[in-house]
Amino acid sequence: MNKTTVYEVQVMFGDCDPAGIVFFPNFSKWMDASSLHFFMQCGIPPWRDLEKSKGIIGTPLLEIQTRFFAPATYGETLQVHTSVIEWREKVLLQKHVIRRGDVLICEGTETRAFCIRLPGEDYRIKSIPIPPEIRQSCS
Amino acid sequence: MNKTTVYEVQVMFGDCDPAGIVFFPNFSKWMDASSLHFFMQCGIPPWRDLEKSKGIIGTPLLEIQTRFFAPATYGETLQVHTSVIEWREKVLLQKHVIRRGDVLICEGTETRAFCIRLPGEDYRIKSIPIPPEIRQSCS
Amino acid sequence: MNKTTVYEVQVMFGDCDPAGIVFFPNFSKWMDASSLHFFMQCGIPPWRDLEKSKGIIGTPLLEIQTRFFAPATYGETLQVHTSVIEWREKVLLQKHVIRRGDVLICEGTETRAFCIRLPGEDYRIKSIPIPPEIRQSCS
Amino acid sequence: MNKTTVYEVQVMFGDCDPAGIVFFPNFSKWMDASSLHFFMQCGIPPWRDLEKSKGIIGTPLLEIQTRFFAPATYGETLQVHTSVIEWREKVLLQKHVIRRGDVLICEGTETRAFCIRLPGEDYRIKSIPIPPEIRQSCS
Repeated sequence: MNKTTVYEVQVMFGDCDPAGIVFFPNFSKWMDASSLHFFMQCGIPPWRDLEKSKGIIGTPLLEIQTRFFAPATYGETLQVHTSVIEWREKVLLQKHVIRRGDVLICEGTETRAFCIRLPGEDYRIKSIPIPPEIRQSCS
Repeated sequence: MNKTTVYEVQVMFGDCDPAGIVFFPNFSKWMDASSLHFFMQCGIPPWRDLEKSKGIIGTPLLEIQTRFFAPATYGETLQVHTSVIEWREKVLLQKHVIRRGDVLICEGTETRAFCIRLPGEDYRIKSIPIPPEIRQSCS
Repeated sequence: MNKTTVYEVQVMFGDCDPAGIVFFPNFSKWMDASSLHFFMQCGIPPWRDLEKSKGIIGTPLLEIQTRFFAPATYGETLQVHTSVIEWREKVLLQKHVIRRGDVLICEGTETRAFCIRLPGEDYRIKSIPIPPEIRQSCS
Repeated sequence: MNKTTVYEVQVMFGDCDPAGIVFFPNFSKWMDASSLHFFMQCGIPPWRDLEKSKGIIGTPLLEIQTRFFAPATYGETLQVHTSVIEWREKVLLQKHVIRRGDVLICEGTETRAFCIRLPGEDYRIKSIPIPPEIRQSCS
């Protein structure tokens, strides 16, 4: 079975839109936070350290897919349940299920790659094969 | 051929993350802005007016799917090309292609429904059949 | 002595900018969340309920002043210490001190007013005298 | 007279809160964008280039003060009028006036310092005397 971590979010007033509900890109923000939380729970250092030791700046997204089932609003506490559901050579699929207790709020899959900077190219980046020690720590 | 609108975005410093590139949920935010811009270009009033006349609070998302092709950074101007690629009874599929001139940055599809508030239920909402006059204005 | 509440924040990757530190408007967002948390800890209902019972939509800002002492970054946990330092007839001054344990990160004062909507004026709002029962609950 | 630049903002749905008006920290975000826009209009390169040539990562904030006069909402276009009102040895005061045409929305002053990274200290930063050539370009 896959390692699963749970990341808790308190919805703020400023996370909500004029309809009174969470503005949906914030769910992506929380999934991203839960993704990093997952890696750190698995013993991976924060990206700022990994960049110095291995040149890895993080795990930028290649693709996201999210389905929304129920709205959420400020004052509520949500739980993001996160696991890696597939490892390929250069990408991994991370799944996030956001719940408010028993209620399913939304569900998303992210396709991520570990990336390094292209030398002399500023903010241009490229993906690298997933380092085996990272994969092992996260499985 | 489908109506297509173009919404322009100037990337701000605060839209970028420690890797120096746009934090990806901001692309969803810009697609959402371009979605509203599309409807307003088609003559649909802003949601705050539509809520008063028809009870419609907007077009919440049922699903999003986004693929990221190239990073972007602050100081750049991006164009979001938006169209509706499918109308169903209760949902519509909106497609957004974000470019920096000739460079494809990302591409996303949103499944949206026109929603009203559930009476006496606060921020609970439900989808309604797409009003034919709205569909007509947007086609 | 004034009631003080503590609101905890976990800094997310997406809260940080290309310099690798918290993008400063996020401190305002967290102070705002801590402001609402303060009122709710004092027994005031969330704004969406207060709007229905008293027409009050919240406590929009008239003025903010913030001083920044040390940067913060993702992976850190911050504490927002919040109290009301002055009550006037129509405004209140709320003070927020953000710390990372013993380290002072920033400090801000907000001038807030309880506001209602202007009838027939959409999103236009006006301040009202602070309801005495609210002031009493918060003191 | 001081150089003044004007930066235009289109308010997005997602910039607004459940009260239907701009969530106030977004005004700080736009002032920050207008601050950078000011420097770039004065011929200063973007921070990512300045960091490579001079080690300067940007102009972090020491203090902000903002007064809010009227709300704004989505679909509106705002103008941020920006100038430097005071140069000291190590800090500068930048003033931003946000208008919607003739209507004053808010007004803010930022105290900023040019900063470099502290060697071997990750994301710790320190201010430096304002480079005379930068001051000259901006006056």
